[in-house]
Amino acid sequence: MTQTPLSDLGEFGLIDRLASKFEIKRSSTLKSIGDDAAVLDFQQKKIVVTTDLLVEGIHYNLTYVPLVHLGYKAVVVNLSDVYAMNARPTQITVSLGISNKFYLEAVEQIYEGIRLACEKYNVDLVGGDTSSTPNGSLIAVTAIGELVSDEAVYRNTAQTGDLICVSGDLGAAYAGLQLLEREQEMFKSDPTMQPVLEGYEYILERQLKPEARKDIIELLAELEIVPSAMIDISDGLSSELIHICTQSKKGCTVYEDKLPIADQTKKFANELRLDPSVFAMNGGEDYELLFTICQEDYSKLKNNSYISIIGHIVDTEAELNLIARDGTPVKIEAQGWKNFNS
Amino acid sequence: MTQTPLSDLGEFGLIDRLASKFEIKRSSTLKSIGDDAAVLDFQQKKIVVTTDLLVEGIHYNLTYVPLVHLGYKAVVVNLSDVYAMNARPTQITVSLGISNKFYLEAVEQIYEGIRLACEKYNVDLVGGDTSSTPNGSLIAVTAIGELVSDEAVYRNTAQTGDLICVSGDLGAAYAGLQLLEREQEMFKSDPTMQPVLEGYEYILERQLKPEARKDIIELLAELEIVPSAMIDISDGLSSELIHICTQSKKGCTVYEDKLPIADQTKKFANELRLDPSVFAMNGGEDYELLFTICQEDYSKLKNNSYISIIGHIVDTEAELNLIARDGTPVKIEAQGWKNFNS
Repeated sequence: MTQTPLSDLGEFGLIDRLASKFEIKRSSTLKSIGDDAAVLDFQQKKIVVTTDLLVEGIHYNLTYVPLVHLGYKAVVVNLSDVYAMNARPTQITVSLGISNKFYLEAVEQIYEGIRLACEKYNVDLVGGDTSSTPNGSLIAVTAIGELVSDEAVYRNTAQTGDLICVSGDLGAAYAGLQLLEREQEMFKSDPTMQPVLEGYEYILERQLKPEARKDIIELLAELEIVPSAMIDISDGLSSELIHICTQSKKGCTVYEDKLPIADQTKKFANELRLDPSVFAMNGGEDYELLFTICQEDYSKLKNNSYISIIGHIVDTEAELNLIARDGTPVKIEAQGWKNFNS
Repeated sequence: MTQTPLSDLGEFGLIDRLASKFEIKRSSTLKSIGDDAAVLDFQQKKIVVTTDLLVEGIHYNLTYVPLVHLGYKAVVVNLSDVYAMNARPTQITVSLGISNKFYLEAVEQIYEGIRLACEKYNVDLVGGDTSSTPNGSLIAVTAIGELVSDEAVYRNTAQTGDLICVSGDLGAAYAGLQLLEREQEMFKSDPTMQPVLEGYEYILERQLKPEARKDIIELLAELEIVPSAMIDISDGLSSELIHICTQSKKGCTVYEDKLPIADQTKKFANELRLDPSVFAMNGGEDYELLFTICQEDYSKLKNNSYISIIGHIVDTEAELNLIARDGTPVKIEAQGWKNFNS
């Protein structure tokens, strides 16, 4: 691969080159990259704003994360937060910090991932900043979106008796990460080893190339369901249930046998002699939507293959229970993403 | 000073503690920190969005930059971009990356600087992210603002004959940086040395605690002047003149004897046997506004002590000249902030 030093282009040359590959698709984008700020016009619509920072060595490991996927994921994790407000993402800004080890071609790969995410989710890249770093890299993305209906869906508005729903399946991204780290350790001890990833394509993809649940927000709109509360699952189901319940001043009962877990996640957890339910409850990086609906909406979702109803909201604050397969209630506690390994 | 490890609070405890010190002042902020995203309502107004990344070791040096000033400056440099669109900043988000060398008290100092800037410029902190880093720190700020009039003021709309104006004075922040670096070098060679900064308070303040020109945007509105083009001076006057002229497909003539330079800047440049005009043209980090006005507006600004008229726009594209004190034309070239030392 060609390796063009970034100094050959200079900061403005680099920005011009990267920006030229992005098209503006949104009518709310009046002015994109190229001035002191982007100019946006949302007419009467309310908007949402969210930001996420990914740091090399903390959130990603470039020895096994392809740069295209890094760019893609940095966008998707922000879009997931926008959807979790019952909003549609419209614009992003991206700040990229890279050391002088990065050549133009590497930066272009990161931006190719950003471009692919913008295309898939119909979002405009409208600004950003590129800086060198003394070492390591980072991506900070800010996403803006417009509300689907007049009101946002918050975390603190779940009601007693509401059904607790989750999209897709849980724990796969965490399983994928464990697999990648295991293979890396094996490679370190014997560099002639080739990683064995066959049969685990799904959990790898969930870790390396997560998607935000645009389709679920569209589905809910179609079914005329406005969730009573919603959050995206970035730190693990336990942590997000605690957010919804604490902020709503409620409790919850969820059932272990209702947790949606993919076959590959189960298979890999079993290989490690770990409980797949722990992956689902505490794994994190699922970017699925956790939401509550009133009981009247049950019939609209009961047979939907994209959504699992895993429990319900109870009145007693701070009484958060997972009912295990044998019927035993287990108190739900936040392990969180970062403490999971400790 | 007490040193509380961040792990004593956890991520959410830290966010709660930091967020509790920020008040919401803007009616456009419907929901601030505490959900997946902030919710904003600008009614019919168009908005602007800009983002800037500051990286330790590239943009700031913690051996001599106080943490409060770092937080303050990280906000101000973004607000400056908002004003440069002829907009008023309304909200910011802040992503902070810090290594485990940072204690709670240090993080609180950074946020105290952010809070002071929010208060001074009447801006709400509505979101952010806090992450650890393997080493070094960084701050990525995104600022949102609403347009003062119906249209933004861009860079690419300067007209032939327009007068070129600059607020405040130039080169002082660069002089302040040179002074700080000189004193640091002297301290390294003899740690018993105390820095000699007396008589240079102004240039130090310009480097350590820059301000964005809210007052100039208010003044222009009061005088009913809409600039034909505007940009903020972050990379040095030369670089910003080139942006305006290139994007407007025009040239410019500016006069060395019209460049506004503070006495302390001149004094320090003379001490280093350097030309103060070079500081003014290429120093950068001034965060003054560079703008063009039509000649009919001349009388409104001619005796204004906050604004210097330094030249005019000419028709011939790429003919950018600085007329030296002796009458010699010198081609204006972008040195930029980073290349200035090389």
